[in-house]
Amino acid sequence: MNIIDFRLRPPCGGFLNANFKRVEIIARFTNQLGFEQAESVKKLSMDLLFEEMKEAGIAKGVVVGRNTAQIGAVPNASVAEIAKEYPDKFIAVASVDPTTRKDSMAQIEEARALGMKMINMEPGLSAEPKHFDDRRLYPIYAYCEDKNIPVILMGGGSNGPDISYNAPEHIDRVLCDFPALTVISAHGNWPWAKEIIHVAFRRENLYISPDMYLHDMPGMEDYIKAADSFLSERFLFGTAYPLTPLVAYSKWFQSLPIKPAAMENILFRNAERILSIEPRS
Amino acid sequence: MNIIDFRLRPPCGGFLNANFKRVEIIARFTNQLGFEQAESVKKLSMDLLFEEMKEAGIAKGVVVGRNTAQIGAVPNASVAEIAKEYPDKFIAVASVDPTTRKDSMAQIEEARALGMKMINMEPGLSAEPKHFDDRRLYPIYAYCEDKNIPVILMGGGSNGPDISYNAPEHIDRVLCDFPALTVISAHGNWPWAKEIIHVAFRRENLYISPDMYLHDMPGMEDYIKAADSFLSERFLFGTAYPLTPLVAYSKWFQSLPIKPAAMENILFRNAERILSIEPRS
Amino acid sequence: MNIIDFRLRPPCGGFLNANFKRVEIIARFTNQLGFEQAESVKKLSMDLLFEEMKEAGIAKGVVVGRNTAQIGAVPNASVAEIAKEYPDKFIAVASVDPTTRKDSMAQIEEARALGMKMINMEPGLSAEPKHFDDRRLYPIYAYCEDKNIPVILMGGGSNGPDISYNAPEHIDRVLCDFPALTVISAHGNWPWAKEIIHVAFRRENLYISPDMYLHDMPGMEDYIKAADSFLSERFLFGTAYPLTPLVAYSKWFQSLPIKPAAMENILFRNAERILSIEPRS
Repeated sequence: MNIIDFRLRPPCGGFLNANFKRVEIIARFTNQLGFEQAESVKKLSMDLLFEEMKEAGIAKGVVVGRNTAQIGAVPNASVAEIAKEYPDKFIAVASVDPTTRKDSMAQIEEARALGMKMINMEPGLSAEPKHFDDRRLYPIYAYCEDKNIPVILMGGGSNGPDISYNAPEHIDRVLCDFPALTVISAHGNWPWAKEIIHVAFRRENLYISPDMYLHDMPGMEDYIKAADSFLSERFLFGTAYPLTPLVAYSKWFQSLPIKPAAMENILFRNAERILSIEPRS
Repeated sequence: MNIIDFRLRPPCGGFLNANFKRVEIIARFTNQLGFEQAESVKKLSMDLLFEEMKEAGIAKGVVVGRNTAQIGAVPNASVAEIAKEYPDKFIAVASVDPTTRKDSMAQIEEARALGMKMINMEPGLSAEPKHFDDRRLYPIYAYCEDKNIPVILMGGGSNGPDISYNAPEHIDRVLCDFPALTVISAHGNWPWAKEIIHVAFRRENLYISPDMYLHDMPGMEDYIKAADSFLSERFLFGTAYPLTPLVAYSKWFQSLPIKPAAMENILFRNAERILSIEPRS
Repeated sequence: MNIIDFRLRPPCGGFLNANFKRVEIIARFTNQLGFEQAESVKKLSMDLLFEEMKEAGIAKGVVVGRNTAQIGAVPNASVAEIAKEYPDKFIAVASVDPTTRKDSMAQIEEARALGMKMINMEPGLSAEPKHFDDRRLYPIYAYCEDKNIPVILMGGGSNGPDISYNAPEHIDRVLCDFPALTVISAHGNWPWAKEIIHVAFRRENLYISPDMYLHDMPGMEDYIKAADSFLSERFLFGTAYPLTPLVAYSKWFQSLPIKPAAMENILFRNAERILSIEPRS
């Protein structure tokens, strides 16, 4: 199987001090979602992770780092290192803190020098939380649009000090103002399922990946229906591992009522298309 | 059959330079909604439209014009002319651009002189986009409330520069401030289905017509459930033609799980009641 | 049966001049929700109410008063009196108008002196409507957090001049800023079902009780799904009587697809846990 998991953070490198720092918090999320924690998480084991990826049919994981004042950071160099060590398993995505323009741009330049083709931002978790349409992100969006760098925005779940940071109008404005920028909504702007589907209906530059919040959560049916129809070419499979276990999530996802051709798009073809993008120099 | 389609724009008169100007854009919408484009649209044929109306069981169409800086305009005189040419087929609705008070009022006066009984506004598409509760619309609402002129507000889909222009609080405030004003939400404030149903629950002067966004889109079940219960007397059938094909849409709509008495209300009785209103002099 | 109804207003004392003042308005709500009005409401009969409670399996009702400029008030002394007269039937909750800090605090002190352990606020219905995160409520929240006094916030339905008063970001901010404060959302912030479930997912100090707006209204499936999974320990049964009839509502509720253990939590265990809280002195 050749599934691409668009949100997977392995238990190694800088992630051990960030996403994996408090395994009991991961467990709370995992259990609230109705899953059992994976063995690879409990044991922080890369070998077990690779076994679970194989069993889940996941060929590659998009390793999305973190650069926040509020819930930790993983150095981009560490993320790049992981992908370099396991080039057939992982694709590295750099993370940018949008607080200061010069620093942000330097982070992007560093990431590009490290060979990373996408960037990730979690502006609701900056020292001063920012909405997606905050003015301070606009130079970054402009640069990424010009250079053809897809941007992952963590929109959903615990993003920001209150639920309005996931509200759909903020990302909608960005999509409108940068029509050639490819934006991926990680967590799918959950819980605003209907609304983000509307945004995707009118903005062709949005991809959505509800990942963990798809599983038995309110809005699930709406996401699935869209994935099975007009959004089939802009929906991305993601597990948000370590927050869900790869095997159970992947098995469940593949049982959803989605047409085979759309399922194939979602499991890997859409991701391949995004990942093959060559940045404009 | 005597269905009244509350949103139908025929391929003639001023519509050829507005809604029908770019048939490929219509096709994109139609296809995203899961429909095939109607022959009458492809061929811009009134004869085919009348055949399709007959086959769809649609006796009359409410012809809603357009008066926007952003996506075109159809002169009210042209809309009135169409209804005059086909009095047994079409009911003309005037459109008002709320940008300048004196101009708006002149447009309403012109429309009334042309025999039009309702007005339509799409304030999110003005040169400067306006929310429904923008102060500049209030003199218009006041006039229409006093004169008993129902107002169609295009609330949903591509209304406005971002999704907040469809958000339910704006229309809710208008309904509260003008309790005797009949308001019809064209596109049903999609995607805010649950929310607009709540607004309709508390405000008896709101009618909703999700039309094209009812078809297999998120929120569909909520709209249908409301149509089958407390909203059955304030729900209106609409196709948003040319965006959906009359025959397929009408057939699909009539197959929905809605009780016969409620279905009858929705297909024509509610529309008849609105259309029979005599403006107060 | 030992069901605890978390929102029940009996036809006696101060309620006769408030919630029961216009029985025809109650009827409109009841009918819009698809119910018949109970005999006890029509006849304003406590005896009939007790019969209906017995038939519905409701052992106790949480009697939530009202203190608003806009839709009436019930003196806290009257609410306390009712619970004193029927100690095995009713639990009294005091209501506070947050308009003036000194008055609010005096009302809380009076309520505590009367033996009441919880307070209720409906700030959207103050003389000047206030959102839940209005600064003027913050001293009250601070006091209640320090003293371990659970707070019921009426969030849903006709709360406030427009639907934004139920929007989830306002209550989310309160829950974040007072993490040890137990908050109960009466009416479950309807219609923002998905969104309030998200808020509950991330904030462990929120209980929700959609009560009347659960019945066949949009969002019902989402509330039920959450009640059957991660929210089972923070979901509360409520009828909003006299707005719904006890017998029909209770019978319907118990037929919902919720696991027996979760149903037991919702019908009484969660309420018992909240009600047993001892205020810190």
